Amino acid sequence: MNYNFLNKIDSPDDLKKLSEDELIVLCEEIRNFLIDSVSKTGGHLASSLGVVELSVALHYVLDTPKDKIVWDVGHQAYTHKIITGRRERFGTLRQYGGISGFLKRSESEYDSYGAGHASTALSAAYGIAVGRDKQNEDHRVVAVFGDGALTGGLCYEAINNIGSSGVPKFIAILNDNKMSISENVGAINKYLNNFAQTTLYNRFRRRVREGLERFPKIGKQMSFLARRIEEGARGILTSGALFEALGFDYIGPLDGHNLKELIKTLKNLKDCDHPVLLHITTIKGKGYAPAEAEPEGYHGVKPFCPDEGLVETGPKLFLFQDVFGKELARLGQMDKRVVGITAAMPSGTGITPFFDKFPDRSFDVGIAEEHSVIFAAGLAVKNMKPFVAIYSTFLQRAYDQIIHDVALQNLPVVFCIDRAGIVGEDGSTHQGSFDLSYLLHIPNMVVSSPKDGNELKDLMFTAYKYDKGPFAIRYPKSVAEPYDENKEPTELKLGSWEVMSEGKEVAILAVGPLVKTALESAKILENNGVFPEVVNARFIKPLDEEYLKNKFSRFSTVVTIEENSLIGGFGAYLDLSLQSLGIKVKRLAIGIPDKFVTHGKRDILLEEIGLNPKKIAERILVFSKEDNYKIIKIK
Amino acid sequence: MNYNFLNKIDSPDDLKKLSEDELIVLCEEIRNFLIDSVSKTGGHLASSLGVVELSVALHYVLDTPKDKIVWDVGHQAYTHKIITGRRERFGTLRQYGGISGFLKRSESEYDSYGAGHASTALSAAYGIAVGRDKQNEDHRVVAVFGDGALTGGLCYEAINNIGSSGVPKFIAILNDNKMSISENVGAINKYLNNFAQTTLYNRFRRRVREGLERFPKIGKQMSFLARRIEEGARGILTSGALFEALGFDYIGPLDGHNLKELIKTLKNLKDCDHPVLLHITTIKGKGYAPAEAEPEGYHGVKPFCPDEGLVETGPKLFLFQDVFGKELARLGQMDKRVVGITAAMPSGTGITPFFDKFPDRSFDVGIAEEHSVIFAAGLAVKNMKPFVAIYSTFLQRAYDQIIHDVALQNLPVVFCIDRAGIVGEDGSTHQGSFDLSYLLHIPNMVVSSPKDGNELKDLMFTAYKYDKGPFAIRYPKSVAEPYDENKEPTELKLGSWEVMSEGKEVAILAVGPLVKTALESAKILENNGVFPEVVNARFIKPLDEEYLKNKFSRFSTVVTIEENSLIGGFGAYLDLSLQSLGIKVKRLAIGIPDKFVTHGKRDILLEEIGLNPKKIAERILVFSKEDNYKIIKIK
Repeated sequence: MNYNFLNKIDSPDDLKKLSEDELIVLCEEIRNFLIDSVSKTGGHLASSLGVVELSVALHYVLDTPKDKIVWDVGHQAYTHKIITGRRERFGTLRQYGGISGFLKRSESEYDSYGAGHASTALSAAYGIAVGRDKQNEDHRVVAVFGDGALTGGLCYEAINNIGSSGVPKFIAILNDNKMSISENVGAINKYLNNFAQTTLYNRFRRRVREGLERFPKIGKQMSFLARRIEEGARGILTSGALFEALGFDYIGPLDGHNLKELIKTLKNLKDCDHPVLLHITTIKGKGYAPAEAEPEGYHGVKPFCPDEGLVETGPKLFLFQDVFGKELARLGQMDKRVVGITAAMPSGTGITPFFDKFPDRSFDVGIAEEHSVIFAAGLAVKNMKPFVAIYSTFLQRAYDQIIHDVALQNLPVVFCIDRAGIVGEDGSTHQGSFDLSYLLHIPNMVVSSPKDGNELKDLMFTAYKYDKGPFAIRYPKSVAEPYDENKEPTELKLGSWEVMSEGKEVAILAVGPLVKTALESAKILENNGVFPEVVNARFIKPLDEEYLKNKFSRFSTVVTIEENSLIGGFGAYLDLSLQSLGIKVKRLAIGIPDKFVTHGKRDILLEEIGLNPKKIAERILVFSKEDNYKIIKIK
Repeated sequence: MNYNFLNKIDSPDDLKKLSEDELIVLCEEIRNFLIDSVSKTGGHLASSLGVVELSVALHYVLDTPKDKIVWDVGHQAYTHKIITGRRERFGTLRQYGGISGFLKRSESEYDSYGAGHASTALSAAYGIAVGRDKQNEDHRVVAVFGDGALTGGLCYEAINNIGSSGVPKFIAILNDNKMSISENVGAINKYLNNFAQTTLYNRFRRRVREGLERFPKIGKQMSFLARRIEEGARGILTSGALFEALGFDYIGPLDGHNLKELIKTLKNLKDCDHPVLLHITTIKGKGYAPAEAEPEGYHGVKPFCPDEGLVETGPKLFLFQDVFGKELARLGQMDKRVVGITAAMPSGTGITPFFDKFPDRSFDVGIAEEHSVIFAAGLAVKNMKPFVAIYSTFLQRAYDQIIHDVALQNLPVVFCIDRAGIVGEDGSTHQGSFDLSYLLHIPNMVVSSPKDGNELKDLMFTAYKYDKGPFAIRYPKSVAEPYDENKEPTELKLGSWEVMSEGKEVAILAVGPLVKTALESAKILENNGVFPEVVNARFIKPLDEEYLKNKFSRFSTVVTIEENSLIGGFGAYLDLSLQSLGIKVKRLAIGIPDKFVTHGKRDILLEEIGLNPKKIAERILVFSKEDNYKIIKIK
């Protein structure tokens, strides 16, 4: 590839040496670079292709890093990274030790604010702008957010505060690609798609015409006037009205791929003395035909061949997400009360098979986790069977609603918590490290985790049958084999654990797919003369009290293994229960340490935090030799 | 008082026997009843006085409980309670064993959905409506929410989904009293206060006039036409536009105290085949002059004399809230970088002294906890010193933002967490039972709690000085004596505990004001031959590792006492730390059990859950006698 211009861009200063026509060529080079590089590393391709011109225009017009750009989510900021000194390291994207797939303050002074979750940019940018003004500093603040972010309530909380503030040198850029990750949903989307013209505007026209009918004689001049009035009103009544009503000056919509127009407009707006909303329209995946055709598929991609696009290779292994979708469709077939809910992640959560089969009972609420949970509570009030599928890290947003609306009213809502545990390349903003910690202390809540696909089937069936209150099932993004599609599901006894292999002295209680890890650790331990019992703790709450009361006395040491923060997790919950049951045993809790876990391959990260078979076996060997804390060499 | 009509109202059916004129008299009786009853029990008076007519009109026009009314927050639903069979029990309001101050599904079939936190009604009502439609049932669903709720993002998530759904027989009633709890804030408020007329509408008028200027000869007829067009446009361009844009049919604004008009309008709207928004304006505190004059003061009241209104009696004891406000003002005086943030609770959190003194650095963001935390993160990026004052139960809303925006970026935001622990009369929706559990597992977070006002002073000063990351301080709504306003604050060593009284064998580690409780327990224990050491565990994270390592060997039993859920709380965190430090000791964790705690006086509730001096002493005596589990009589 030819990167004549790009190779000279080591910072935004270098952009300013180019003419606008040269910048247009640079944008083409950046697109090629992006496609080539992301095809090797994987990453968020389509969103980044959509904002190449915007990123270049912003850094060309503004004085970064003094001026602050806050990118919502941050996965669209690859061009921003490339032109702010990270071009050469871009090949390490999302890899262990490499640059992050999102923005990070610790990575670059140009990353003025980190993100990963949506709809935060306006609030953060406003905080930065107020901090600037209180200290009499002088720089611009720009927040870039997508139309998807506008389905999240946070945006409105920010708009409500910013709009009434009159804060100067503050540009909110709405990057409208009619998509968040999948196709966008809800009234705001219809609204941006000229809903206003067809409803508000039509209503207005009708009233103008009713007025005209009273003066039939005025004739031509009148209808010309009416046309002018209509045109005037149109500008107010279309997309802008919503934002104008909330205190922003609205400019747009502008073609977000027209670099010269972007530059001109940004130059006009950059020193405005009140908040401005610039609405640009872009094409997600712009410039790469397969991504333009299928932007959801190219939202987050694994490595691929640029000429061929995404091609499935090798035999298909079932992931937990696949099992979830299939089994929800099965339950939906059995019972018309089953409803599937996702927050802008139909494909990511694997819920698509249910959505395809039962569109009437399928709800994509947008990036609106809080609403999704209360909506499910309302459905449960009406005796429906809502299944809410949300990633562990995003369900953090609905923590209050899980307590206040679902658990307090003890409503039977099922939470299928995806990406629980270490997520890998998405890194620290996306790790599912906390769900056990934020769920276990909620009264009335059942918390469970399957070791494999067959058990996910059984747990979903058990949750479906359970009508006494909320039921959570957590699983990581990983292979769920074995899974037999045709097997009939079994209702599991609430709280029941499963002994995977009997042993003595040491018991290993493992959560979810770590059961497999525990079995592998057990083999290593057996080679070292320790013969542990391995238990599948598929219910984390309630615990298997029968097992605790009847079996624990056989062990001198009980080890818990979980892909969750140690603080407030399964091990800590077990300790409390042992205390209240009066059971005394030597305890070792293994889990995610008290830190944010970085990005990289799942395997590498699990090893780093000590959650692979060898590391676990080492810990147990050391621990079981009483106070002998030197590391024992593994045979 | 004369309650001729009210005494005959045992259910909404009885309303329907009255004429509209008689209903107007009934409303007067209800107002008198409310003022009289709440003056004895205390409660949320002003909001309930505002919706007497609305409550009567709804139950008169609708067929409840088949038709579902979802009240946002629920503290305004006293009239609803009184006319749905709870008149005679109304004198037990908010008392232990009495009726709840909010709505509860378990309390009445007329309470179709419970609440306590704001902005949830639209989502819940939508879930109920969808559940109805999927099962081909036929009833109406009404959601009543205040203009304050519209400052919360959740509302927009719901509106976005409902507006595009076209759901029938769905009425959203905006009860607009220009207040949430205190005076409302932000653009949405300006908007509802005819902001639209002055901005959008003026802009429109200008364009119409520009059109007219082209045709000066048409004269009178023309200006009449222009007026008609303007009037037509006005309806669209004012309050309604926002909601119409988002897919609702907008009706209003209507005088919410005109019962006949309300009844007529509700009859017209009740079977509408698409979602309707009815905008009514009401006066908070309507009909009781002191409450109309000072609605914030009469939002939630203690018992008072109806003729005199609220009168301060007795010597003023400092509450933690008072100390917080005074000390924040002191810090604000010291450093211009100190910013105070509240989410619609300036008076409740006690932040008013700071707000009065430094209005430029004071931000009431509305009922927008999520935004408040990211806004603070943005301020911290700019090296400001934001103090965020939010109740424990409401900060649950910002759990994700605390993780994703503050802790992950390790920004020095100070959280002053009010109403931590048992709140008393507000009951289960408002208990601060979980903050330690939702904060302790968040990496980088310092978590602390003062035993009294002087220590709150010191902790706030320590938090102000700490620039390495987030810092949380939690305290209940209770007396904070001793507190010396004039004492200079001391910077405390991070993690340092304070030995209150030395002892042997048993150590009691207590959090916050429970230190006083522990000292009282210690006296009981001493009378029974046990001499415990009492420790003020003012830092919950980090723990005082020096104390753990050097002092724990002296004790056979270590007891932790906390006003937080046992699961994921201080005791559980200590256990994990002891495990990793290899410290072995017999442990007893005392805290809030795994259930939702009801309403009633704080003292009664603390006794119920075993957190008063006597109960704690009993537990410790039983526990310290090894496996002897029979209750020992206290001397």
